Amino acid sequence: MLITLTTDFGYRDPFVGIMKGVIAGINPNARVIDLSHDIPPQDIMAGALMLRHSAPYFPRGTIHVVVIDPGVGSARRPLLIEGNGNYFVGPDNGVLSLALEGQQPQRIIHLSNSTYHLQPASATFHGRDIFAPVAAHLSLGIHAAAFGDPVESFFRLTLPAPLRAARCIKGEIIYIDGFGNLFTNISQRDLTEAAADRLAISLRDGVIRGLAASYAAAAEGELVALVNSWGLLEIALYKGSARWRTGAEIGDKIEVILDEPGTGGHS
Amino acid sequence: MLITLTTDFGYRDPFVGIMKGVIAGINPNARVIDLSHDIPPQDIMAGALMLRHSAPYFPRGTIHVVVIDPGVGSARRPLLIEGNGNYFVGPDNGVLSLALEGQQPQRIIHLSNSTYHLQPASATFHGRDIFAPVAAHLSLGIHAAAFGDPVESFFRLTLPAPLRAARCIKGEIIYIDGFGNLFTNISQRDLTEAAADRLAISLRDGVIRGLAASYAAAAEGELVALVNSWGLLEIALYKGSARWRTGAEIGDKIEVILDEPGTGGHS
Amino acid sequence: MLITLTTDFGYRDPFVGIMKGVIAGINPNARVIDLSHDIPPQDIMAGALMLRHSAPYFPRGTIHVVVIDPGVGSARRPLLIEGNGNYFVGPDNGVLSLALEGQQPQRIIHLSNSTYHLQPASATFHGRDIFAPVAAHLSLGIHAAAFGDPVESFFRLTLPAPLRAARCIKGEIIYIDGFGNLFTNISQRDLTEAAADRLAISLRDGVIRGLAASYAAAAEGELVALVNSWGLLEIALYKGSARWRTGAEIGDKIEVILDEPGTGGHS
Repeated sequence: MLITLTTDFGYRDPFVGIMKGVIAGINPNARVIDLSHDIPPQDIMAGALMLRHSAPYFPRGTIHVVVIDPGVGSARRPLLIEGNGNYFVGPDNGVLSLALEGQQPQRIIHLSNSTYHLQPASATFHGRDIFAPVAAHLSLGIHAAAFGDPVESFFRLTLPAPLRAARCIKGEIIYIDGFGNLFTNISQRDLTEAAADRLAISLRDGVIRGLAASYAAAAEGELVALVNSWGLLEIALYKGSARWRTGAEIGDKIEVILDEPGTGGHS
Repeated sequence: MLITLTTDFGYRDPFVGIMKGVIAGINPNARVIDLSHDIPPQDIMAGALMLRHSAPYFPRGTIHVVVIDPGVGSARRPLLIEGNGNYFVGPDNGVLSLALEGQQPQRIIHLSNSTYHLQPASATFHGRDIFAPVAAHLSLGIHAAAFGDPVESFFRLTLPAPLRAARCIKGEIIYIDGFGNLFTNISQRDLTEAAADRLAISLRDGVIRGLAASYAAAAEGELVALVNSWGLLEIALYKGSARWRTGAEIGDKIEVILDEPGTGGHS
Repeated sequence: MLITLTTDFGYRDPFVGIMKGVIAGINPNARVIDLSHDIPPQDIMAGALMLRHSAPYFPRGTIHVVVIDPGVGSARRPLLIEGNGNYFVGPDNGVLSLALEGQQPQRIIHLSNSTYHLQPASATFHGRDIFAPVAAHLSLGIHAAAFGDPVESFFRLTLPAPLRAARCIKGEIIYIDGFGNLFTNISQRDLTEAAADRLAISLRDGVIRGLAASYAAAAEGELVALVNSWGLLEIALYKGSARWRTGAEIGDKIEVILDEPGTGGHS
């Protein structure tokens, strides 16, 4: 059984390795895949977005453990959520929620059964003491219901929705990857009626005309807009960083003008 | 059989991957877990501390390989140490020693038998040429004694010990994690007589009153002291970095006043 | 079957983890080893060099996947190359070529058979949609020829060759590792006639006399020249960074004077 790990622990400290040691001690055959451990400290939204766009590429039955947990040791509940045959383990602070958007999970379990925790659990590292051992036991085939009491609901984050007007869509930047590519909250679906060559996208002072088919469709050093691998409208700089070029940050507004006069082949 | 790897090689170069290739060529079934590869270059103490606080969470029989080795190619000896059923492989510069504190190991082997090394061994990369192949052969069940000559002792680091006076403990910062949390050399044991609500901890210009039960027990942006997952007194900043806030560095002194008048519920 | 991954995706985004999820979904028993994911963005030469010096340490039959791919989604071809019993998967931009230097591969396949790709393939992430699924299917034993049409040749990078004069060799820096060690294009072979103690190496304003046997042969804080684990002449700073000390960059010229008067034991 596959377990993924996503944390904001970074790569300098041995905290992720310790979690893997705990897992290996309980289930030596568990396979563990790292999604990321370099999420900005306490950035629950970044972790939730990563999980949403990664989980669909893992086989059914995968156990996804996410430890971005500024509230560790406080009253926030540790959870196990079963949804569509997959499992999500982490704190009830929203970090698991975007991967479960639009679904009512089969089961939400408060991890209250300390039989499956390391004893005594620390106040600062539930990744080691609760989440890793629960995931490892789950990977051995122990039923989700054994880990604690069922609860009715969990904390859900909401992504800002794009606003649709007659001839434009107003959106914003929700994620910036390591290349400096700017991911927006506008999805391929939102753009279906639009003619790719008659779009214009405005961001800060600049305007990008048309949707490209690839990064390389732009000249080197030129901003380009395209639909990326997450199905989202993205602004990129061919062989460069759109973040550095534009100075853009998460939360910055963008506007897509759907049928700009003077562009495209029909005008 | 499980092998852990800890190095100061960083994540940019392929050196860790090469070690894993060597291991896989010798024992395709070995499982390898990374503790950290981002230890500051040549920081033997950091590696030794990580290993001390990670090894207890791995199953018995794990082989821990540590390559922080500024003396590679010189007279410093490559070692295999067997202690309490676990194995420690690395240079004799102290990096293995804190994990073996207070024990007399069963066996200390100078890795002098080059049958188990890559040939010819380079002068700069014993991780690839000596430590990885030794660990891989060990994981196949070859007896520790086969790898070279037994030796009597190995180089041991000593951690600064906290100083106990009548109503205070003087300690220092020995590790700072990626969140900027300050780990001290004062352990839970040292604090057992102290009333958590009547402690005060002084660091540089500041004073923190009381021991908290979790990070979240502090207000956002406020320094907090607690016993962390390594069993050590830690100073943290809730949703922030105590390192940046205080400017503290490894080696900075702290003082715990055990029974401060005017704090707590009894005054 | 072993798969290695080398990319410029960094460790902050979940892109590498997603590739591993795709592989695990196709072949749950595939073993994956990371070479590096922190190659500077779009640095094809760095990736090609890493692969050249890493592949020899992996068992025969290993599948090496390299995704440094600024031309993703454009006309550049995705390739599978079989050479000496190993497999190389990636874009046809030279990144695979140095590992195959001096050999005519058994088979070069344009990955044109979309049966083995994720559908629909994105324009921005062929690592997920083409390279990972091809590698996973290959690891299941599917024959290389099934993945597309054979082609005659592939794009080859050329490394600058050292220039040999009567009493000197002119070379340059081709790689700088995370310790700041400067790797040159001058190999051990080029130095066989030279007496190690009568060499002098000039770089920028400085001169290093003699070839050392190890880093530790130098005094702390002193530049040292040696033949490193890649078989290349390297300039290093014992317990420090030769990059910071010298300000050297990739492409900087160096000169080895082979028989310097006034050095060595014979003068």
